[in-house]
Formats: sequence, structure tokens, C-alpha cells
Amino acid sequence: MGNTFGHLFRITTWGESHGGGVGVVVDGCPPRLELTEADIQPELDRRRPGQSSIVTPRKESDTIRILSGTFEGRTLGTPISMWVKNEDARPEAYSEMETRFRPSHADYTYQAKYGIRNWQGGGRTSARETVGRVAAGAIAKKLLRERFGVEIVAYVQQVQRIAADVNRDTVKLKDVESNIVRCPDRRAAEKMIRLIEKMRRAGDTVGGVVECVARGVPPGWGEPVFDRLEADLAKAMLSLPASKGFEIGSGFGGILLTGTEHNDPFRARGGKVITTTNRSGGIQGGISNGQPIYFRVAFKPVATVLREQETVDVKLRNTTLKARGRHDPCVLPRAVPIVEAMTALVLVDHALRHRAQCGE
Amino acid sequence: MGNTFGHLFRITTWGESHGGGVGVVVDGCPPRLELTEADIQPELDRRRPGQSSIVTPRKESDTIRILSGTFEGRTLGTPISMWVKNEDARPEAYSEMETRFRPSHADYTYQAKYGIRNWQGGGRTSARETVGRVAAGAIAKKLLRERFGVEIVAYVQQVQRIAADVNRDTVKLKDVESNIVRCPDRRAAEKMIRLIEKMRRAGDTVGGVVECVARGVPPGWGEPVFDRLEADLAKAMLSLPASKGFEIGSGFGGILLTGTEHNDPFRARGGKVITTTNRSGGIQGGISNGQPIYFRVAFKPVATVLREQETVDVKLRNTTLKARGRHDPCVLPRAVPIVEAMTALVLVDHALRHRAQCGE
Amino acid sequence: MGNTFGHLFRITTWGESHGGGVGVVVDGCPPRLELTEADIQPELDRRRPGQSSIVTPRKESDTIRILSGTFEGRTLGTPISMWVKNEDARPEAYSEMETRFRPSHADYTYQAKYGIRNWQGGGRTSARETVGRVAAGAIAKKLLRERFGVEIVAYVQQVQRIAADVNRDTVKLKDVESNIVRCPDRRAAEKMIRLIEKMRRAGDTVGGVVECVARGVPPGWGEPVFDRLEADLAKAMLSLPASKGFEIGSGFGGILLTGTEHNDPFRARGGKVITTTNRSGGIQGGISNGQPIYFRVAFKPVATVLREQETVDVKLRNTTLKARGRHDPCVLPRAVPIVEAMTALVLVDHALRHRAQCGE
Amino acid sequence: MGNTFGHLFRITTWGESHGGGVGVVVDGCPPRLELTEADIQPELDRRRPGQSSIVTPRKESDTIRILSGTFEGRTLGTPISMWVKNEDARPEAYSEMETRFRPSHADYTYQAKYGIRNWQGGGRTSARETVGRVAAGAIAKKLLRERFGVEIVAYVQQVQRIAADVNRDTVKLKDVESNIVRCPDRRAAEKMIRLIEKMRRAGDTVGGVVECVARGVPPGWGEPVFDRLEADLAKAMLSLPASKGFEIGSGFGGILLTGTEHNDPFRARGGKVITTTNRSGGIQGGISNGQPIYFRVAFKPVATVLREQETVDVKLRNTTLKARGRHDPCVLPRAVPIVEAMTALVLVDHALRHRAQCGE
Repeated sequence: MGNTFGHLFRITTWGESHGGGVGVVVDGCPPRLELTEADIQPELDRRRPGQSSIVTPRKESDTIRILSGTFEGRTLGTPISMWVKNEDARPEAYSEMETRFRPSHADYTYQAKYGIRNWQGGGRTSARETVGRVAAGAIAKKLLRERFGVEIVAYVQQVQRIAADVNRDTVKLKDVESNIVRCPDRRAAEKMIRLIEKMRRAGDTVGGVVECVARGVPPGWGEPVFDRLEADLAKAMLSLPASKGFEIGSGFGGILLTGTEHNDPFRARGGKVITTTNRSGGIQGGISNGQPIYFRVAFKPVATVLREQETVDVKLRNTTLKARGRHDPCVLPRAVPIVEAMTALVLVDHALRHRAQCGE
Repeated sequence: MGNTFGHLFRITTWGESHGGGVGVVVDGCPPRLELTEADIQPELDRRRPGQSSIVTPRKESDTIRILSGTFEGRTLGTPISMWVKNEDARPEAYSEMETRFRPSHADYTYQAKYGIRNWQGGGRTSARETVGRVAAGAIAKKLLRERFGVEIVAYVQQVQRIAADVNRDTVKLKDVESNIVRCPDRRAAEKMIRLIEKMRRAGDTVGGVVECVARGVPPGWGEPVFDRLEADLAKAMLSLPASKGFEIGSGFGGILLTGTEHNDPFRARGGKVITTTNRSGGIQGGISNGQPIYFRVAFKPVATVLREQETVDVKLRNTTLKARGRHDPCVLPRAVPIVEAMTALVLVDHALRHRAQCGE
Repeated sequence: MGNTFGHLFRITTWGESHGGGVGVVVDGCPPRLELTEADIQPELDRRRPGQSSIVTPRKESDTIRILSGTFEGRTLGTPISMWVKNEDARPEAYSEMETRFRPSHADYTYQAKYGIRNWQGGGRTSARETVGRVAAGAIAKKLLRERFGVEIVAYVQQVQRIAADVNRDTVKLKDVESNIVRCPDRRAAEKMIRLIEKMRRAGDTVGGVVECVARGVPPGWGEPVFDRLEADLAKAMLSLPASKGFEIGSGFGGILLTGTEHNDPFRARGGKVITTTNRSGGIQGGISNGQPIYFRVAFKPVATVLREQETVDVKLRNTTLKARGRHDPCVLPRAVPIVEAMTALVLVDHALRHRAQCGE
Repeated sequence: MGNTFGHLFRITTWGESHGGGVGVVVDGCPPRLELTEADIQPELDRRRPGQSSIVTPRKESDTIRILSGTFEGRTLGTPISMWVKNEDARPEAYSEMETRFRPSHADYTYQAKYGIRNWQGGGRTSARETVGRVAAGAIAKKLLRERFGVEIVAYVQQVQRIAADVNRDTVKLKDVESNIVRCPDRRAAEKMIRLIEKMRRAGDTVGGVVECVARGVPPGWGEPVFDRLEADLAKAMLSLPASKGFEIGSGFGGILLTGTEHNDPFRARGGKVITTTNRSGGIQGGISNGQPIYFRVAFKPVATVLREQETVDVKLRNTTLKARGRHDPCVLPRAVPIVEAMTALVLVDHALRHRAQCGE
């Protein structure tokens, strides 16, 4: 009952890893935006399994199809329904999952909650569910770019202990896409790739941090006191599979500073108000202040490892489980477009909310 | 337009620092819960200014009054309206705020968003706004305790570099309330208090971390894919003034582990499924798994410092601003009941949502 | 759990007939609207008991107080909390209601639903609950008038068999207010008043129809397919105590025409599209077409009559009940400002929704 | 932006008359309900064009496909996505609609609102949009029947001046389905059919009334003050294409009675509270009282007639328009399953809401 996100630009996702496919309905998209599958597919390709040697090799083309909401290449203002068929249906690959709960997966909690679950490939708990988010996010990104002048860039900032050095004010999509780990710092990227490949060979997995920056957001977006912009971003990020933490601006590191050190001085520049530092992360009191918005998301190591692990079966007997075949050594490279998508969804929703209440 | 929180147990807060008061309307509270002001006031007293030497000295009794929704000491199932009058109205104490934007406060963003703001004491951006949250949270806590067997305990876990050692499985409210900084580790508490008092004398401020644990949550609460339990907790926490980060379970620290190290093995114990470690933080796939839920919230140092700082005025001219009089050296002790309140609001909402869809 | 209305201009009402009062929180009101109690009170005075010889004589001044959301006489964009104290608290007047369910009232259903009820004066089921709606509606009406050029006029169109002849295109507030029954057709008004007074003397009650027209709504308001403008109006009207029916445009009478007769021809006039008839009632496909919006609401006769009636008591024993003292012979005159208020709330919400999605 | 309906059992519909199809996503369906396409298709067949000589002859098989949310024939508790492909795509049949606004259709208002429209077959404004409602409603009906013991029956009660005599307490689905006009009064049904066929031959159309009864609803469903059960039913009905009015219980006719005549006496019977009359229509104070719920919906004559009519074109020039080929002489027979579907959606949503707040 929690498969809808957003207040005015509202998406509802559906679908399981195995079955008829995965999809999304976008309601509230402004009319007359040029939109075809060609605007969506590239983002899905960035999310797709099998795109490189360091991600899960599941074979899916993830071809998007727009079923409604556009006419002659433009949005109608009516719901946009999008669908990606499932292709790589090999339920037998998951047969142990029918009877045993994978540790640190959602098999047990879904069973406990619903008294039933689609155990094939994890069903709704599969990361495949994010296809709909990315498709909807592609529309949101286009709207933000064309109608609001907002640019969103996410990248892998850390893998385990390997941290990258990235200039948030200048980093571009092409820097991110310049390597398979999606880290704009090439030196760090190489180390990250080596670490992930080592993990893959070891049948183990590794986590890290995706950082995201949104530039060009005007002052005024965000709806206190509960729908603060950072609150909705935090919710969006913690709704992603495997995410464990969120921090905006100075984040957890900011607690080491005193107030005097932490405050961002205001200055007037060219008829605008700017801050000379940006520990606030572009948001003050829940509302954007015109500076770049940036935040970090922690992703735990993927739970599926090729090692024998202790667990229980559906009859509540102690047993062990060892995943077979292929696995995804690191979720981070594919998480990058998902983080961008969720960021875009939050921002466009707030752009419309702000226009509703404060527009002329 | 974002002053309502919750889906089924739904609160709407209102009020500014100066004016008729602050309050909250709670809609969706189950009927026949015993409830009087005596259930609410103690929580407000924990949040109240002037309660100790290390918090803001503003003089407010914060006396709660229930205006509707109860009858003969029990809830009716109708909206519960609660109101706290403002008392300490000294607008002159804030006169510079009329023309100058306080750095790292929300003065500028409110002005930019709405084209108007109540500059007295920060108006709606004042932490005073949290009175309504705490009042509503007191009801949620009582419901959770009496009808669902859930206990929530929050405490100050870190102030700047001083970190406490707390046993999440056993810590109790009385441990938290045993000192004015609300840290159950007495040795750390003493250091924290000394640091905060030093900051107060220096006219500066300091931040830290509040940790919160919820014990007794049964398996099954949480509504994937967007309204995951941790997603709603993250939103709740990032909606708090001065919060900059949220992490659940292993959090940002978890990225240093491999998947094999990070996974929580399942075991059967007494006919139930437990995990032998709890890096998941009691939530898997967005749904509670029966283990204690715990998370951490980073609060930046309070922005009001008694030092001269660079800023701009409402005519966009560069200037400086120096706050006068009293200030709040550390928000953490008073943040503890607020974090508990928001946690309770999220949990009770999900308890009702789970019952709606999956109840018999 | 259904005490909030609206999507962007959102009101939450609270309060029972007896207790601390009744009130409303308005969230989402655009900022910088001039607003003081003087804008609200006149509408409440139109709703007030005791205003004439043909309505309930309960003694309440219904004095409104704005507790938050304005500053120096203008709205802040933050929640506007409004409160009216209860004055006429005479619980003893209702003592039989403690043990017996009044026929065609909500005593029984509230007891069945919640297992508890405030039986004093009907508690939340009292028409007194509409105070909050009227107060919020006064703000909505002002916004519509000043920022969108929309004028709303409602009036009593029928009392039992006495129907009025009213020109919807020209009727004005002053015509409505020219007599105590709020019917702009003076001849019909006199008959209505005589009938109502006769009913009052007989201890009986009478129902009728309130018609409402909104002029100046531009083409484009309404959100198909579910939040059609007439759907939200229908919900608003059927949420009123004692309402039993709603019809828009040709309504139930329209079924006597053929399609050829019923269709509204379009014509171009002055660069605009108009219809030469208006059986659509100003809405086509759920969206306003620029013509006047008009609809009718049926109100049943008030259930409280001064006659002995069969009923059951709380122990489910058959008994009788006879109301004592004063009663309200006809709800219609006081329903007029309430219908206007709900209409305004629907329209302003849709104005903001339209601006959000389709604004530039 | 209004394509979602319901609070806990929540549906989102999508699709245009021409394009990839029409569909619906159902979120919040309880788990473990047996469900396959065979539960849905019969309801769609009742809604389908071409089912008899008195409805629109458009050729569509309307074959439903469940894409997600079930596993081994049972619901998972996750979103249920359903899709019906469009087949009868003959855009040329509608070529005049590209440039001319059909009178009393939504062509003009969609153009005015969105600045764009899919003119083929009316796009989103086509009655084809109701496919998703009926599919979702089939699930709601099954839930109500199996888990709550509620039975919903709708039927054509009036066509123009021909009114049927139907016993609301006993009418069954098979009575309704015994003839093509779906009127359980056979004598009236024959007259209705003759009138509709006459209209078809004349190229004209006719409207009427669908009545609906829900039996078995327990006392307690409905969420005052805004989400009263009848308010949500009214919204549901007025959200249907061509509907112009709604009345519950005594409705508009009830205004002819005095309060004494109108009130429903309570009596105790078999340990339950019943009313000896049912002018309330099974709802008092917005909450079901255990008696049958019944209401009536007015549908105007279909706007498409095979006569030349005055209209304007997209360049705002006066012109005429004459529809060609086939037309739908009466919407009523196909409206019956749609009214049932919407009724079921409202009731099941309220069943879950009641359980959430007042369940044990």
C-alpha cells in the first residue's frame, strides 16, 4: 500500500522480478513536453544488468514502452503508463528461495507481513522494481532541465574505504559515464573497479556511497514543516533497496564543527543572495536557498553472496543457504541513475507544489 | 502546504514562535484510549526551554490544553485538537531579524519562498513548532505502549567528538533522564555537559547525534516500496530543525564491511525467527523483522551564536549580525523527546496501515 | 480519520458541540493575502444560530479568533489556525441522549463505530462542526474573488413544495440576504417563511433545496478522471449534515431530454468559446468550460422534532424519545453560507491544482 | 493529476481510447485473495461495447491481463497491474474531431486545460477509460463478498420517463442480467428497450437513472466529517462520464416530507438495531447503520447524436458538426457494472479504513 510517490508529480510503480513485467504510471506530468521512448531508454540502459563486468549479469534488455499519456510525441497531461517486459525468467535458479529465507533479504519480512510471497527472484523485493522509478525519473529530469533549468548529477563517491575527490560544482554526466564504476575521479575509479572485481571473484560484495548534486534549483522549493526538501530527499533515498543512510550538506561530519564554524555566511552578489560556504547543502529551514543541493547515500554491501550462510526455512527450522551462479558484487554503479531519478522526482514535485501555492 | 504528517494517524501542526500559540490536530487516533493532559504534559516538559543550564533559557510553561476529541477522559475517535499558548513574547529581542537574515537560519528562504515572513523569533521556523509534534507523539507513544507493546527510547549518543557507550537492548527512559544532557552513559554525559557549558560561555554552539531504539515492534510493519519503514523514519527525522543526517542499523559504517560480514544470520528461537546480529537495524526490505529498530540522527550545531557574522539585509546589502542575550548552546537534550515523538508517529501510523491491509 | 478536505488548499476541522470549541487549520493558503478576523466573522454570522425566528435559537456568539498563519494582517503561507469557543454548554438539555439514540441522527452509528460518543449536543455530529468549514471557506472565497475573479452565490431555491424563480446569471449576495430565509425570490420567500414558522410551532421540521452558482471560473479547472470538478463538488455537498442529493446543470431533470435537446451548442463570441445553453452546468468532462457553474443540493428535514418517536436505548431495548425545548425547524437558511464555503474550498483547491500542472 | 481513487484500497487508471490500451494499478489489496483473470473478465464483458443491439457497436474484446501482484492464483499484497489492449483503432472515423469540438463533450475543455488533446475517439475522455475502474471494481466486489459478506446490485431504474418498480431488498444479479437493458422489472425493461431502439434509429440518444443497492454492510463504515460514506459514493458517481446527479435514500424526494414523516424509527430486533423505514439509505451521520445502502445516479443522454449541430472549430470559428456511422443510443445498460464497480471501490476502502482505526 505504499507504491505511490509524490504529491503532484505522482508515480505508482508495480511489478515483480518474475511475471508480466515491471512498470510505472506517472500522473500529474505537465502537458506538451516532448516525450518518446528515446527519452527514457538511455536512463534504463544505465540501470540495466549486464552493462559491465562489475555488475549483475542478469540478461534483460529492459526495453521501455509508453502505453498512454502522449500524443504525436508530446505529453497530454494524462497518466503516462510505461511498461518493461520481464525476459530473464528462470525461476529454477531461485528454487531454494522457495523454502529458505535469504539472510538480510526481505524474504522473511514479506512472508511475515503478507503470509505469501513471490519467491522467484525476490518478487517485488527485487531491485528490478526500480525500473519504474528510473523511467519516471527520466521524465522528471527532462522537465527539470527544460522548464526549470535544473541539472542533476550523481556518482559513486566511495566504495568501501576508497573515497573519490569530486568537484561538486563542476562535475558533469560525461565525467560520471567515463568509466564503468561511475566515479568521476579516475584514479579512485580504477581502485574501485579492482576492488569490486576482486569481490566478484571471491563471491562476496561491497558497499559504498553515492553522492548527488542538483544545480540550478531556485530559492523557494520545499514545504515545511514536514515536507521539507531534505526530508523528502531522505525518504526517497531510504526507499531504495540496500540504502542505510542519508546525509545532506555537512551531514554527520558537521557535528565536529562549532556553530560559528558551521554557519554559511550570506553575501549579496549580482542582485542575488549567495552563501560563501555551503554546509547547509543548498537547503535552509527545509527550503532551497539557490545554492547547489548535495547529499550522500550509504548503500550496504549486496546481501547475496556465494558463501554458505546460516538461516531458517519456512518451517522455522535452522538450516544454511548458499547462493549459486552469478551475483552482483556491488550495487553502486547501477544505483547512480536510480539516485538521480529519485532526486528528480522529489524536485519536480516540489517545483509544482511551490508554483501551486506561491505562483502568480 | 506540508504541515500534515502521517497517512492514518495523521497530525497537522500550526503556529509560530510569536502569536496565538502553537498546536496540533491529531486525526485518526483509535477510540477509547484513556487520555488527559496529564499524558501529554510530561513529554512537553522534556522538550521545554529553561529546563536546565545547558539549554535555551526562553521562559515558557508550555502548558497543553486538549480542546476536542476526548470525552470523560477517553478518546472519541474524532480529531484531537491541542493548543499551547505563547507566553514569552518579546518581539523587540529580535528586532534585527526584521531587516537582516540570520546565517544558516531559514529567514532568507522563507522570505524568498513566500515574499513575507514573521521575523519575530523565527516565526514558523522556530523550534517552538515542535511542540505540536511532541504533544501528538505522546499520544502515539501511549498507543504503542498499551495496544502494541512497543517501547521507544532515544538518547544523546554523541556531542561533537564525545561519544557514549549505550546498550541498545536494555537502555531505559530513567537512564536517559538521569542527567540533563540525556545521555545514559554517565561518564560521557559529564564530559558532554562540560563541553556544552563551555560553548555556552563562549557564545558558541555544538552539535551531535541522537540515537533512538524501538523495541517490541512485531514483524510486518512497513509499506514497500516507497513507504518503507526506514524511509518514513528518515523523512520524519530530516523534517526536524537542524537535522543533517540519518542512518539505520549499520548505516554509513556498514559500508566498510563485505556482504558476508554484514549479513544478519537468521535463527529459529522459541518458535520465532530472530537474527543473531542486527546490522539491518530491525528492518529488512522496508518491513520490520521483529528485532529492535535503531537509528541515528545527526544534528548540526545551533545556528544562533553570539558572535558577529557576515550576512545580507532584506535590501540585499552586505552587513553583519550579532545575536544578543541568551542562546541555545546545544539542541540535543531537547531533541531527544522530539525524536521519540516522531518515531512514535511513524510507528503507530504503520501499525494501523498494516492492520488495514493485512489484519483479519 | 476523514477530517481533512482538499489537496492543495487543505483544511482540517475539529471540535464537538460541547467541549473546548470548534476550529479549523487551513494549510496551503497562498501568502500575502490580506486577512483578519473581520474577513471571517461576517460569514460565521450568516451561519450562526439565533439569527432569526426561523432557525435554531441556541445562543452562541461564534466569535472567531485567528491563532496563527498571519502577520501584520497578511497571510504568511503557513497554517492558519482558527478557533471558536463553545459558549452554550448545557449538557443537561441533552441528558436523554446519553441513553437513547435519536432517530435519523448519528448517535447510533457513532456508538457502533467508535464504541464511545460524546452525547452532549451530538458531539462531533452536531451541525456546529460546520463552523470550521465556514471560517476556512471565507478565506477561500476571498482568494477566489481577489485573485481569480470568481463570485459564488448560494440561496434557498425550494422549501418543501415552494420553489423559487431565480436568475442564476444575475443573482447577488444582497438579493439573498434581503430576507431571513435567504431566497432571492421575495414572493416565494414569504411563503417559505410562513411554512417554516408553521412547522416551528408544530414542533416539526421541513427540508428543501439550496442552489449555488459560481460565476467567473475560467475554462480548465478540474482534474479528471476521478477529481472531476463536479465530483469534488458532489463530495463536498454530500459531506454536509442532512444533505441527501446533488445535481449539476440539468441534473435529474435532464434525463427527460434527448441528446439532441440536451447538448449545449458551442459558439465563438469575442474570441472566446461560449455555449448558448448551459445544461452542462459549466462543467464538461469534469473540467470547467467558462460558463457559470451551478448545482443544487437537497437537504432533508431536520431530524430533531418535538414529537414522541420510537427508538432504542443503548442497552438495545425498545423505547421512545421526545425532544424538549427549542428546535431548528429548517436548516436551509443557515445552510446557504455553508454551501458557499464548501464550493469555495473546492474551487480554490482546483485553481491551485490547475496552476501546478498547467501553469507557466 | 486526479487519476487515483481511494485511500487504502487505491486505484490508478490510465489510458486513452486510442493508443497502447487502458489499464489500472490497484495498490493496497489484501494478500491471499484468490484472483485470476477469470474473476475480472465477466465484469468487463458486462461493460463491453457491442454486447447487444442497444449499445455502442465498437468492436473490442476487452481482454484483461494481470501483469503483476498475484502468484499462483492469489494476491501478494503488492500492486496489481491490469491491462486491456486497444483493438478498434480507426482514427479516421474521428477525423472531424481533430478540428471541431463536439458539443457537450470534453474536447473543448481538454484543449483549454492542457493546450493539447488526443482527439482520436476522445482520448482520455472516452468512456473506455472506465475499463480500469471495472477491472479494479471486480477485485473489490470479490473482497467484499468473500471477506465482508457484502453484496452489491445495480440496475437501470429509469429510462427517460419509463420508471421500473424494483424491490431493493431482494433484487439479484440474475434479475438484472435477465435482459439487455439491465432492468429487473421486465415490463418496464421491454418499454425501455423499445424506446432505446427507436432512439438509435433516429440517431438520437436518451438518459435515465441507475439505482444501486449494497446489502450486508455492517454498522460503522464511513469517516466523518468529510469522508462520509455517502460523500465518497457521491464523488465516485459524479466522477463517471455523463452522470449529472446523485441522491441517497429519500434523496430529492425526501424534501416533500416533514421531519416526523422522514425519520427512521429504531427498533431492537434479534440483538441488533434496525430501522423500520430506510429513508436514510443505510447511512446516518456519514456512517453505515446496518440497513441496505441505496442510491440513484442520473445519467444524461449521450452527447454523440447523428444530427447536425452548431459548434466551433479549434480556430474559434463557428461551424457545424454531424457525427457519422454508429453511435451509442443509451449509456445506461453499460453503466450498471461501472456503478457497481465504483460502489465496491468506495465500500472496500472504507472497510479497510474502519478496520485501521477501530479494529482490535
